[in-house]
Amino acid sequence: MGFAHKHIIGTQQLSKEDIELILETAESFKEINLRDIKKVPTLRGKTIINLFYENSTRTRTSFELAGKRMSADTINISASGSSVTKGETLEDTAKNIEAMNADVIVMRHSCSGAPDYLAKRLTRSAVINAGDGAHEHPSQALLDLMTIKEHKGRIEGLTVAIIGDIARSRVARSDLYALKTMGATVRLAGPATMLPPGIDELGAEVYTDINEAIKDADVVIMLRIQLEREGGNTLIPTLREYAQFFALNTENIKLAKPDAIVMHPGPLNRGVEISSYVADGGQNVILDQVENGVAVRMALLYLLAGGNDEE
Amino acid sequence: MGFAHKHIIGTQQLSKEDIELILETAESFKEINLRDIKKVPTLRGKTIINLFYENSTRTRTSFELAGKRMSADTINISASGSSVTKGETLEDTAKNIEAMNADVIVMRHSCSGAPDYLAKRLTRSAVINAGDGAHEHPSQALLDLMTIKEHKGRIEGLTVAIIGDIARSRVARSDLYALKTMGATVRLAGPATMLPPGIDELGAEVYTDINEAIKDADVVIMLRIQLEREGGNTLIPTLREYAQFFALNTENIKLAKPDAIVMHPGPLNRGVEISSYVADGGQNVILDQVENGVAVRMALLYLLAGGNDEE
Amino acid sequence: MGFAHKHIIGTQQLSKEDIELILETAESFKEINLRDIKKVPTLRGKTIINLFYENSTRTRTSFELAGKRMSADTINISASGSSVTKGETLEDTAKNIEAMNADVIVMRHSCSGAPDYLAKRLTRSAVINAGDGAHEHPSQALLDLMTIKEHKGRIEGLTVAIIGDIARSRVARSDLYALKTMGATVRLAGPATMLPPGIDELGAEVYTDINEAIKDADVVIMLRIQLEREGGNTLIPTLREYAQFFALNTENIKLAKPDAIVMHPGPLNRGVEISSYVADGGQNVILDQVENGVAVRMALLYLLAGGNDEE
Repeated sequence: MGFAHKHIIGTQQLSKEDIELILETAESFKEINLRDIKKVPTLRGKTIINLFYENSTRTRTSFELAGKRMSADTINISASGSSVTKGETLEDTAKNIEAMNADVIVMRHSCSGAPDYLAKRLTRSAVINAGDGAHEHPSQALLDLMTIKEHKGRIEGLTVAIIGDIARSRVARSDLYALKTMGATVRLAGPATMLPPGIDELGAEVYTDINEAIKDADVVIMLRIQLEREGGNTLIPTLREYAQFFALNTENIKLAKPDAIVMHPGPLNRGVEISSYVADGGQNVILDQVENGVAVRMALLYLLAGGNDEE
Repeated sequence: MGFAHKHIIGTQQLSKEDIELILETAESFKEINLRDIKKVPTLRGKTIINLFYENSTRTRTSFELAGKRMSADTINISASGSSVTKGETLEDTAKNIEAMNADVIVMRHSCSGAPDYLAKRLTRSAVINAGDGAHEHPSQALLDLMTIKEHKGRIEGLTVAIIGDIARSRVARSDLYALKTMGATVRLAGPATMLPPGIDELGAEVYTDINEAIKDADVVIMLRIQLEREGGNTLIPTLREYAQFFALNTENIKLAKPDAIVMHPGPLNRGVEISSYVADGGQNVILDQVENGVAVRMALLYLLAGGNDEE
Repeated sequence: MGFAHKHIIGTQQLSKEDIELILETAESFKEINLRDIKKVPTLRGKTIINLFYENSTRTRTSFELAGKRMSADTINISASGSSVTKGETLEDTAKNIEAMNADVIVMRHSCSGAPDYLAKRLTRSAVINAGDGAHEHPSQALLDLMTIKEHKGRIEGLTVAIIGDIARSRVARSDLYALKTMGATVRLAGPATMLPPGIDELGAEVYTDINEAIKDADVVIMLRIQLEREGGNTLIPTLREYAQFFALNTENIKLAKPDAIVMHPGPLNRGVEISSYVADGGQNVILDQVENGVAVRMALLYLLAGGNDEE
């Protein structure tokens, strides 16, 4: 098939050709879905294990659906209830799963680098990173690119503004790598305390004023403020302050190009990082992202687990 | 297929013809099961999402089995571990699920009206109410009717006594609507504090004496006392008092017709609302209800998700 | 098929012929897997319910995969979230599952005897014990035997040392019965407080010195120390003492035959009952056990649920 990778750890490792192949494959799967042939035998006999050390209904469900639509067997393992709590090492857990003849292990973990660590130690199973700490979330970036391409016809030459807690966002990082590779201009904006030092060296333009970042953008990606991770950090603004200065609303959206699209990885905090008017407005393509997510994950599983080996 | 509904929210909206079609469809699925052809390709390629905001192993398992027997892909989402806990609105959660091309969303929620709220906002996915607050639990009522018809040959003209915490029972409400529509006489009985004001206006006969309600009944449906919901309510009787005055036992069951059947939605509280002698006695058809539950849910999924669109 | 049992409760009930049939069946399933034909229609239309009252990701996943590879429908029910917490009796829960036409109920329970109790009360569903208290864990013992036979060519005449908390190990008990039946010599070793009185009457040689038990052994099975069950028991040694006197390490493993194999049911406590050098060394066959586990469970499901009854 010409796909050069055994694992999908991040968009940082993906070339322009890799991304184009993934998007084209995803588009053809989406077309099949739209023709209402939702079940194809492509991965019949293949086993996909969702190994989630962090909860994520939407990503897990999307991968599960992607696998089932290609007739793969899918098994969910969540950290609560797993051997992890019994003191087993991550590597032993993964090697056990591999020994059960898993073709693909889709893994989410709170530690950056955990999927890469496993990928280097497994010999038979492919690993897909479904989000690791603040590192990468490649399938989210790829569905973002698919959605942008679908609405704009191209990615190259576009200006994409990503707004929010950049420092702790694996989505921002994966989007940045992939968008740069595809030739887009990427602007990152957020409160100073949410901008990681050195991020400009990765080729992004960095702003602390959302208005400047949005101005004339073709795409505005609003990141979710991780309410549940706030803890006692007093350096970051309160939600009220955040919403006042960094939410996308009916006023500042006017600064973007008139045909700009609005994206969000979900779940939405309405009234925090995005106003309901914008979230429900005509420029939002958030549900297209969700739909494309299944297609992109079908493409990744297909490219890694290969075709149907059965006679 | 001639089925007039896009969603199943309650038995209140179902006509006599609707109920007859559902029961006939369920009966034909049960016959196929009994011939040990447990897997049919009817819903191959269809996706059914069980979205459960309240735990319910038995209802969830029954819908899951129903879907799998028709070759649908089934995905379970439970509130714990879902985006709900991340502050997403119910509508956003449901629209996300719909965007993943779910054909049917089977939903349980602690708030009355939640499935109806979603049904009005979703354009592609069908919604089946699997129990909402104290409102309705239509698939339970339909399996009750199927079981009554199976044992009595008809529903019209029968006298059905429903005993227990009527006020907080979605089963009682769904049974009442469906039984009245089919022409049965419905008697409701329980402690005065468990009888909702105005329930007689829905066409039920209301009793505070279990003996009067049972007398000459063809069917006795014992409701489960929700031990886990008791809280600090001092108006309701203690379990001991309840069992003394409102349990079905070997004495009061004699007041019903000699060939009366005893039903219960499960799980049983033996020694609370039903004595073990009755629960295991020859008049009980409780396990028939469970078996018919799968058939009724197959019928509902089939009628809403339609046939196999694949080539 | 000539398999004499309706349920699999323990290896104590299995004859030499039973075990040989199970192992041969498992070996043929493994061969099919190795030829990469991972999906066979053998149990299409059959329903397998994993009813787990104790968490066990690895055993549950192994049974789930085994079922799916034979095209059965598999449903997981865990105690948390089940009707159990609503006061239903074990028997009522099981009869409900049976009424949904479950072909096999795979059951783990903290009480010794629970699967046997159910097997005696169910008329249609087969029961497989997936671990009950400190009683038996037959599928684990059978995968151990399969792995021994694979590496040694036979079981009869071998010397097998089992080291650890014998008293609380269902694995040790199931291994002992099955190995004795197949003609092996079984040595049990552990701290005196972890050796149940009377175990020698079952035909085992009992040691409190690990070195004596290992000496000239063909197979060394290290049991997992159940860290999570320690509680406040002051009679048992501390982990540090345990590791000092009863861990398998690069020194004492030399006492076994040069071609001895090392086994462990997992999950591993590295540095407690087994040193990492041994766990990763060339003599360990731990991942073979995991792989064989799926094949053995396919064999059990196949022998109990029979072939495909569909047209």
